[in-house]
Amino acid sequence: MLTLHFAPNSRAGRIVWLLEELGLEYDLNRMDFHPKDLKSDAHRARHPLGRVPVLDDGDIRMWESGAIVEYILARYTDGALKPAVDSPLFPQYLQWFHYCEGMVMPPMNTIVVQTILLPPERQSKEALDQATRLLTRALAPINETLEGKDYLIGDFSAADVMLGHSCFMSNRFGCVGEELTHLRAYVERIEARPCFQKAINT
Amino acid sequence: MLTLHFAPNSRAGRIVWLLEELGLEYDLNRMDFHPKDLKSDAHRARHPLGRVPVLDDGDIRMWESGAIVEYILARYTDGALKPAVDSPLFPQYLQWFHYCEGMVMPPMNTIVVQTILLPPERQSKEALDQATRLLTRALAPINETLEGKDYLIGDFSAADVMLGHSCFMSNRFGCVGEELTHLRAYVERIEARPCFQKAINT
Repeated sequence: MLTLHFAPNSRAGRIVWLLEELGLEYDLNRMDFHPKDLKSDAHRARHPLGRVPVLDDGDIRMWESGAIVEYILARYTDGALKPAVDSPLFPQYLQWFHYCEGMVMPPMNTIVVQTILLPPERQSKEALDQATRLLTRALAPINETLEGKDYLIGDFSAADVMLGHSCFMSNRFGCVGEELTHLRAYVERIEARPCFQKAINT
Repeated sequence: MLTLHFAPNSRAGRIVWLLEELGLEYDLNRMDFHPKDLKSDAHRARHPLGRVPVLDDGDIRMWESGAIVEYILARYTDGALKPAVDSPLFPQYLQWFHYCEGMVMPPMNTIVVQTILLPPERQSKEALDQATRLLTRALAPINETLEGKDYLIGDFSAADVMLGHSCFMSNRFGCVGEELTHLRAYVERIEARPCFQKAINT
């Protein structure tokens, strides 16, 4: 049985979303997104930095949402939500899958730190402004690729689980401008998926 | 023919390293790591944010070093440098592959920005100190996993191309403490590989 160590408003939501889309059974260890849970001895024994998601599959323990998504697709599906290696969609799938942590999440993390996690007296307006500019620039190519498409590579794929989740977060922090019409429609499309709703309401 | 758009001291070095380890032929478009090249119209036509690496494979154009590594392994090898899906090493391979951009590169990027890219009057000591603390914490689990092993999953793999490159960078910026003995030996082991030397001297 798969066990997902989870906290709301984190990358762990991606894994709930994926597991629900695939119809896989799993146990959920729901923690609060708070040091009392994430920095507890029990959770630090799972991940020394107290991060989520962590996936247990029998004796196997894994960190990193991108790795966990790849693992679940490879071990628990027959090619679902991912183009075959010889598909013309394969390169773009990989690119947008990795664009999530490579380009969008670093400024998104800074914005979370500088608005929610740090106390007001330690927040830096310059750091926040710089991250907002970076994020705005990183979102533009996503908006462009979505023109005429429902999802990043056309049909819904695991690239949407990764990058779509980041776009949803970016939108929630008010960083998806009115002019990014394709991206705004994409976020609405994601929010309308029942499995995504389940993930963000867990 | 594969064409790699490259600049030194960037993630593009990972792709040179991988191509050399695999013995694949490729053309190299070597640019300077400077806005005159990376933010030029010619390069912005390849990547709207002016980033490297960019890989061209005929009509296919791809960004993101992690995506490019996965693409080359899948399309140009018969399973080299990556454990099979049913291998007991597969989960750890994925985890360390993704740990690179998920945990190590965000603080590493901040350190580069706050020491090299920003002019001194715009550098923030608080941002630098915070990133250095984060990076130090992120490196500890890598040091731990390397105990008794030459590479992240034992034999050399593409996870080393990703995360090993980040460890090399971290060490160059003085962020690998004396106490991280396994990690220091690992960086030396990487530096001794001829294909890595070729990558960082390109």
